[in-house]
Amino acid sequence: MSIAEQYDALITALREHGDLGGTLALLSWDQETQLPPAATPGRARQIGLLAGILHERTTDPRFLALVDELATRLDQLDPHQQVNVRETKWRIDRTRRLDAALVRERSALRSESHAVWIRARRADDFAALAPYLARLVAIEQRVATAIDPERPPYDVLLEGFEPGATTALLDQLFAALRDGLVPLIARLSACLARKPLRATGLSGRFAIDKQRALNRLVAERLGFDFSRGRLDEAAHPFTTEVGDDVRITTRISERDLRSALFSTIHETGHALYEQGLDPTARATPMGEACSMGVHESQSRLWENLVGRSEAFWRWLLSELANVFPAVKSRSLATVLLAANEARPSLIRTESDELTYNLHIVLRFELERALIDGTLNVTDLPAAWAEKMRQYVGVAPTDDRDGVLQDVHWSEGLFGYFPTYTLGNVYAAQLFEAAQRSLGALDDAFARGDFRPLREWLQREIHRHGKTWRAPDLIAHATGQPPSAAALLTHLNRKLTWLESV
Amino acid sequence: MSIAEQYDALITALREHGDLGGTLALLSWDQETQLPPAATPGRARQIGLLAGILHERTTDPRFLALVDELATRLDQLDPHQQVNVRETKWRIDRTRRLDAALVRERSALRSESHAVWIRARRADDFAALAPYLARLVAIEQRVATAIDPERPPYDVLLEGFEPGATTALLDQLFAALRDGLVPLIARLSACLARKPLRATGLSGRFAIDKQRALNRLVAERLGFDFSRGRLDEAAHPFTTEVGDDVRITTRISERDLRSALFSTIHETGHALYEQGLDPTARATPMGEACSMGVHESQSRLWENLVGRSEAFWRWLLSELANVFPAVKSRSLATVLLAANEARPSLIRTESDELTYNLHIVLRFELERALIDGTLNVTDLPAAWAEKMRQYVGVAPTDDRDGVLQDVHWSEGLFGYFPTYTLGNVYAAQLFEAAQRSLGALDDAFARGDFRPLREWLQREIHRHGKTWRAPDLIAHATGQPPSAAALLTHLNRKLTWLESV
Repeated sequence: MSIAEQYDALITALREHGDLGGTLALLSWDQETQLPPAATPGRARQIGLLAGILHERTTDPRFLALVDELATRLDQLDPHQQVNVRETKWRIDRTRRLDAALVRERSALRSESHAVWIRARRADDFAALAPYLARLVAIEQRVATAIDPERPPYDVLLEGFEPGATTALLDQLFAALRDGLVPLIARLSACLARKPLRATGLSGRFAIDKQRALNRLVAERLGFDFSRGRLDEAAHPFTTEVGDDVRITTRISERDLRSALFSTIHETGHALYEQGLDPTARATPMGEACSMGVHESQSRLWENLVGRSEAFWRWLLSELANVFPAVKSRSLATVLLAANEARPSLIRTESDELTYNLHIVLRFELERALIDGTLNVTDLPAAWAEKMRQYVGVAPTDDRDGVLQDVHWSEGLFGYFPTYTLGNVYAAQLFEAAQRSLGALDDAFARGDFRPLREWLQREIHRHGKTWRAPDLIAHATGQPPSAAALLTHLNRKLTWLESV
Repeated sequence: MSIAEQYDALITALREHGDLGGTLALLSWDQETQLPPAATPGRARQIGLLAGILHERTTDPRFLALVDELATRLDQLDPHQQVNVRETKWRIDRTRRLDAALVRERSALRSESHAVWIRARRADDFAALAPYLARLVAIEQRVATAIDPERPPYDVLLEGFEPGATTALLDQLFAALRDGLVPLIARLSACLARKPLRATGLSGRFAIDKQRALNRLVAERLGFDFSRGRLDEAAHPFTTEVGDDVRITTRISERDLRSALFSTIHETGHALYEQGLDPTARATPMGEACSMGVHESQSRLWENLVGRSEAFWRWLLSELANVFPAVKSRSLATVLLAANEARPSLIRTESDELTYNLHIVLRFELERALIDGTLNVTDLPAAWAEKMRQYVGVAPTDDRDGVLQDVHWSEGLFGYFPTYTLGNVYAAQLFEAAQRSLGALDDAFARGDFRPLREWLQREIHRHGKTWRAPDLIAHATGQPPSAAALLTHLNRKLTWLESV
C-alpha cells in the first residue's frame, strides 16, 4: 500500500471506531434520559456487547500494524496527518502494554469496588471499602509500571486523563493555588461571620415547563446549535457526542433557578467545544478535544467567568423577568449575590467557585501519596479530615461527608481529579487572554451577545483539536504557560466584591 | 461439543444478534423521535455499520454450521428447543441461497428506486418509475427462484413476510372478502347518498399536552407496561422493541382527537404482543412474534374491534370529558359515529375499516400478477383504476392517488401487503373466539377493564412465540382455520349500524 492508501485506511478505521463510540454514547444517553426503569438489564447487555466490539477493533493486530507502519513514515505526512498518526500511536501504545489478564482483573475489581462503595457510603463504613481501595491502588501501580516503568507511577496515570500534564506541573500550580486560596478562604469565613449574606435572589417557585424554555433560550444564546444538538434532563447532568450531534442535559429544581441554569451553562460550555471542533477532521485526533482539563476549561469558563458575571446577569435578568414576572422586583445585586454564594463546606460537588479548588488540591495530594506509597489507605480518613481543616476550615465528622463522598477512587480513577482544577486554571487564563485580545466583553454580554468570545475560543482552542498537548495549547492561546495567577486574581476580585456587598 | 453445549452456543449467538438488533432499533427510534435534523448523516453511518456487523454475525460460517449440526439432531432436543432450531434453520436457509452479488444488486436497486419513487410521486410521473418497477419485479422473481425453484415465485416471496401463508390460502380468504365486501361497499355508498353522516364528534381544538396525558392514560389502561416501555411522538407512528423495552409512538393533531387515539391504540396492540412474549425465551424464535400478519392482528383487534366499539367509548367518553370539559356535551352516538366514519376513498392509509381490505385485495391481485408475469408494469395504472372502480366504486384521476401512493413496491416489497388484511381477518376471528371463551366483554370494556381480553390474547397467542406458523396458531386459538367469515360478520354488523343512525 502507498502511504496515501495507508493513511486513508487509518482514517476509515478511526471513523468506524468513532461510529461505534457514538452508538455507545447513544446507548448511555438514552439510559440516562429515556430508558424505562425495568429495561436496564438489556441496556447493560447492549453496552457490554458494543464495548467489546469496539475493543476488538481498536486492538485488532491489523489496525495496530497499520498505525505502527505509519508512525515510521511520519516524514512523508503533512502536519495535520502527523498529529493523527502520532496521537493514535500514543493511544494504542498505552493500551497494548497492558496484558489481557491485567485488564480483566482491573475491570472486575473496579465493578466490585464500585458496588462496595455504594454500600459503604450508605452505611458510613470506610472499613468495608478500605481493603478494596488498597487493591485498587496496588493494581493502578502495576498498570502504571506496565505502561512505563521508567517514570513515576502517578505521572503515568495522570497522563491517561490529561496527556501532557506532569506531577511537576501540578505541584507548581496546586502549591500556588493552596498558598493563595487558604488565606482567601479564611477571609471568606471572617466575612461570613460578620454578615450572613442571605442569597435567596434566585429562589422561589418556578414552573418546570417555563424553566425548560428559559434554559433552552440561554443555551441557544450562548451559541449552542440545536440543529446539531439537544437539551434534555438527567439526574446528573452531562454532555455527550452521539455522532453528528451533541446532547446536553440539565437538572431542574422547582425552587431554585440556579440548579438548571448553571448546569445548562456548564454543559453548554462543553458542547460549544464539541460543536466547535473541525467537522472535516471528525473522529480523528485533529477533530477531537485536546484533553479533559481543556474540556473542563470550556465548561468552567462559561459557567463561572461568564455565567456568574455582572454583565451576564444584566442581560439574563431581563429575560428572566419575561418568563417569571415575579422576578421583576428583584435587584441585580440580590440576584448576583445568589449566583455567587460562597461558603466553606464539606462536599466538593456542592461547593462554590472560591472553595472548590481546595477540595481538588486535597484529593490530588492524597491520591498522589497513595500511589507513591507514602500514605496507607487506613490513614486516609484522618489525613482527609486534617487537610479539610487546614485548607477549607471545616472537617467532616463522618466518612460519608469525607473520604467516601466521591465515586472516583472506588472506580480506580487516580489522576482524574486534577483535571477539574486544571479546567479552572485554564479557564481563567483563557478569559484573561480573550479580553486582552478582544477588549472588555461586558457590554456585549449585557446585550446577550456572546459571539466574540465564542468565536475567539473556537479559533484559539476548538479548531486545533489535538495539535498540541494541553500546556502547549494554553501557552499558544494565551502567550503564557499554565499558571494559577489569573484564577487567583479572579477569585480575589470576587471575594473583595463579596466583602463589599 | 455435546448437544447441550451446542444448543447453549446457539442461544448465546441468537441473544447477541438480538442485542445488536435492539441497538439498531434504538438508532432508528432515536432518528424518528429525537435526532436533531443536521445529524442524520452520522446516524445513517451508524446504522449502516451496525447492520453490517449484524449481517456478518448472522452469516458467520461457524454460526451456520452450528445451526446445521443442531438441525440434524432435532430428536435429541425438547419441543421448545426444536422450535428454536427449526425456525433459525429456516431463516438462514432462505438467506444463504442468495449469493452476495444478487443481494448487493437488489439492495442497490431498492435504494435507487425508492429515490425515484419519491420524485415520481411528487411529479405524478408513473413513466419515470415504470422501468425501475420492471427491474424490481424481475429481481424478485430471481430471488424467489434462487430460494426455491420448485414453488411459484409469489408463494416464496409471501413466505418471507408471512411464513406459513400460501397463495392458495390468500386466494380463498381474499375471494371471500371481495365477494362479501364489494356489495357491502355499494350499500355504504347508497347509505351515504341518502344521508351525509357528519362525523365531527371528535373534532375541535384540543391542547397537545392534554392529549399527551390522555393517550398515556389510554395506553396504560389497555395494559401497556410503562416500566418496560415509552410513548412518544413521530410523523409516522410505529412500535419498536429496543431491548428489554417496547416503544410506541403516536401522532397528535390539535383539531382531531382520532389521529392520536387510534394511532396509540393500534401501536399499543403491537406493544402488548411484544410485552406479552415469554421473557425467558428472549431473542429466540420461541420468544418472538409468530408473523407480521399475527402482529397486525393484535394492533387491529385493539384498534378496530375494541377501540371503535360502543362499550369502549362508554368508558373513554367519561375519561375524555375529564380532560376536555367541552366534550361533556357530546352524545355517545355522535362520538361513536366519529370513531366509525366510513367512506369509499382513493388512499389506503386514509381509508376506514369497511373499505380498507378492498385496497389490499386489489394490491394482492396486482402484485401477484406482476410476479407471475401475467401483468406488465406498463399496464399497471389502468389495471389499478379498473379494480378501484369495481371494488371500491371510486377511481383515481392521476397516478399519485393511484399506483404511486404506496412506498412498498418501490422498495421491492412484493408479498407484504397481504399481511395487513391477514391481520384484520385474524383479529376478527380472535375477538369472536375470545368472546366465546370469556363471554361478552362489553361490561368490562365499559368499566375500562381490558384485562380479561389481554390475558386471553397473551395465553392464546403471545406466549406461543413461533411454536406454530400463523394459520396453525389461529386454528389452535380459535378452533377454526383462517377464515374471512368473522371479519365479514363484524363489518356487516357495523354497516347495518351505520345505516340505522
